[in-house]
Amino acid sequence: MSFANSLGRVLKENIYADRDFPPFNRVSMDGIAISHRVFEEGQRVYKVEGIQAAGSEQMTLSNTQNCIEVMTGAVLPENANVVIPYEQTVIENGIAKVSITEVSHFKNIHKKGKDKMQGDLIISKNTLISSAEIGILATVGKSTVKVAKNPKVMIVSTGDELVEVNQTPKDFQIRRSNVHTLVSLLKRKGIESKTTHITDNKEILKQKIKGFLEDYDVLLFSGAVSKGKFDFVPEVLEELGVEKLFHKVAQRPGKPFWFGGIATSVLSEQDVKNREKNNTIVFAFPGNPISTFINCLAYFYPWYQKSVGLKLNEVTAILSEDVIFKPNLTYFLHVKLSYKFGHLIATPIRGNGSGDLASLIDADAFIQLPNDQDEFKKGEVFPILSYRSF
Amino acid sequence: MSFANSLGRVLKENIYADRDFPPFNRVSMDGIAISHRVFEEGQRVYKVEGIQAAGSEQMTLSNTQNCIEVMTGAVLPENANVVIPYEQTVIENGIAKVSITEVSHFKNIHKKGKDKMQGDLIISKNTLISSAEIGILATVGKSTVKVAKNPKVMIVSTGDELVEVNQTPKDFQIRRSNVHTLVSLLKRKGIESKTTHITDNKEILKQKIKGFLEDYDVLLFSGAVSKGKFDFVPEVLEELGVEKLFHKVAQRPGKPFWFGGIATSVLSEQDVKNREKNNTIVFAFPGNPISTFINCLAYFYPWYQKSVGLKLNEVTAILSEDVIFKPNLTYFLHVKLSYKFGHLIATPIRGNGSGDLASLIDADAFIQLPNDQDEFKKGEVFPILSYRSF
Repeated sequence: MSFANSLGRVLKENIYADRDFPPFNRVSMDGIAISHRVFEEGQRVYKVEGIQAAGSEQMTLSNTQNCIEVMTGAVLPENANVVIPYEQTVIENGIAKVSITEVSHFKNIHKKGKDKMQGDLIISKNTLISSAEIGILATVGKSTVKVAKNPKVMIVSTGDELVEVNQTPKDFQIRRSNVHTLVSLLKRKGIESKTTHITDNKEILKQKIKGFLEDYDVLLFSGAVSKGKFDFVPEVLEELGVEKLFHKVAQRPGKPFWFGGIATSVLSEQDVKNREKNNTIVFAFPGNPISTFINCLAYFYPWYQKSVGLKLNEVTAILSEDVIFKPNLTYFLHVKLSYKFGHLIATPIRGNGSGDLASLIDADAFIQLPNDQDEFKKGEVFPILSYRSF
Repeated sequence: MSFANSLGRVLKENIYADRDFPPFNRVSMDGIAISHRVFEEGQRVYKVEGIQAAGSEQMTLSNTQNCIEVMTGAVLPENANVVIPYEQTVIENGIAKVSITEVSHFKNIHKKGKDKMQGDLIISKNTLISSAEIGILATVGKSTVKVAKNPKVMIVSTGDELVEVNQTPKDFQIRRSNVHTLVSLLKRKGIESKTTHITDNKEILKQKIKGFLEDYDVLLFSGAVSKGKFDFVPEVLEELGVEKLFHKVAQRPGKPFWFGGIATSVLSEQDVKNREKNNTIVFAFPGNPISTFINCLAYFYPWYQKSVGLKLNEVTAILSEDVIFKPNLTYFLHVKLSYKFGHLIATPIRGNGSGDLASLIDADAFIQLPNDQDEFKKGEVFPILSYRSF
């Protein structure tokens, strides 16, 4: 893809220096270029032979008793090996007088090849591309770059109680919000996705999912994964040969949760050959807004990071107060984050349970409290899943 | 704008609850809904009257000795006030037998208005919109929202030594990289920008800038701000009536730096009436890649944050080793960031000065060391400017 569009993508090739950096002895201050030997011999007055502009071919100092005016970014003239900045020079009638008495060899010159030599590795494969990498790609002339392919994602909402955002729900209805949350959580990682809604009807669900398994790399479901009469998703996925990897994670919020891939047993020989293509990953999250939100951060994000070749960076924070949580479940607690003296502090925000999307507004992240502990003390450190950027 | 496109923008209106949240007594577990009073009286066997699905109108438990099967997300039936989950119930031939002996009033029911009451403020004006806000906007039916207008930005490179990224530079030339770095640094904040290159000719520069001052909210220059013979930018801006706010900041790298706005003295009466529109902000950065990079993080970012109404969040980190820097300048030192036990640790990376863009690859941020100190000790805390997200 064009390097200019690659911000936030993962580089899939090594990037090498196409020439030395700097590619020439580069002037790094505006001033005059002279011979260091002549300066050392005590000469402080120089006749100006000409001006070496940035972007012009290298000039030659024909008489080393003289000087050439040089601009930042210009090539150092032949026979010169030190630059005295204008701030330390007075130029009148074509004569430059230098006001300093000491200067080191190659001062104010960025020497050819000092940063990198031609052929040096500059950016490694599997680097997440930031603005720094964009600048380097431009510098070495990589106008197109190989990046990790993003998965084709379909996000499916279920639940007959849902109406569209621009509709007015009846008393027993609510608006469809989880798909929008998921789309934006994916967009934050640079992943585009499509969305659809399927009515709580097993046959329709099965038919649609069958098509999606052929066309998409990832399916994300919100709702219909629990024990309800109309929770057909796990059943339909199993009937379609999607291997259940786990269901019901011991965590709060977000207990029922389904995750799968395509089972090889139901694949034809041809399918097996195309396995990578057909190996759709399914994440089926509960319909509760907070559960869906946490599960996306806790399961989809790390899966995605690994799939594009990124290392997982665990971020930890310090609890600002004691927390007690007795059930034998991993507990994702809403926290507000703050940086104080280089410490990342997590202050618990008490929500009203897994339906309370509004509590997310006051928080920045979830802190992940492990199930083998009941009491979590002020000052203890745990991993966090943040949904805001700092 | 459409709420679905508002991720990363700054909200410019308060968002209120359009109804109670939850809008009805919402069932939060699949199971049976019964009368708490009847349960307390010792009854453990209930005839099933029907099924209350999510998205269906509220049913009524006609006989409080009976039960109604209820699905997560459904309205709690009239006359019921507790839900026993399927996990604690056996249903055979239309009769549900409950296996527990204690349950509290309204257990497994998310009560109407518990999270928010109709009319409550949910999201305040000037909030940076994350996925959490997207979910809330969907929930309350705000299909379109007011967000801060992003500035119209033109990024101008100067310097005749520059060639395009897809060209092969001659020995004395380099590729144009700073504009691409700046475009991506702005994109990271959700700001689109245009770019152009102007040759080192004062008249052409003046004519072009004049037009840009009329058409853009922000101009960013890279190069031509120093003391060189072809460094016309500060001169031209002054001639065009752009008020110089400061030039040459005492910092390394990135010393020459120009920042301005339009001086009211050169505005016509009509212009003054339209002042907000004409009040173009100019940031003119030096041509060195690192200087441009730092100046964008240190000056443009905070200006932008303030202009859209966001508070500035200072992030600080802990130095991992001693640093000595004697010049009386603010020193922006490349650092690698890591989170250890809730501490944000900044490990210095030694670059080769302001031309060495490659050193950015090994680092994540700059740590800002103040000018009133010469020695910076391991364990001391200073602000950081990060260009990677964690």
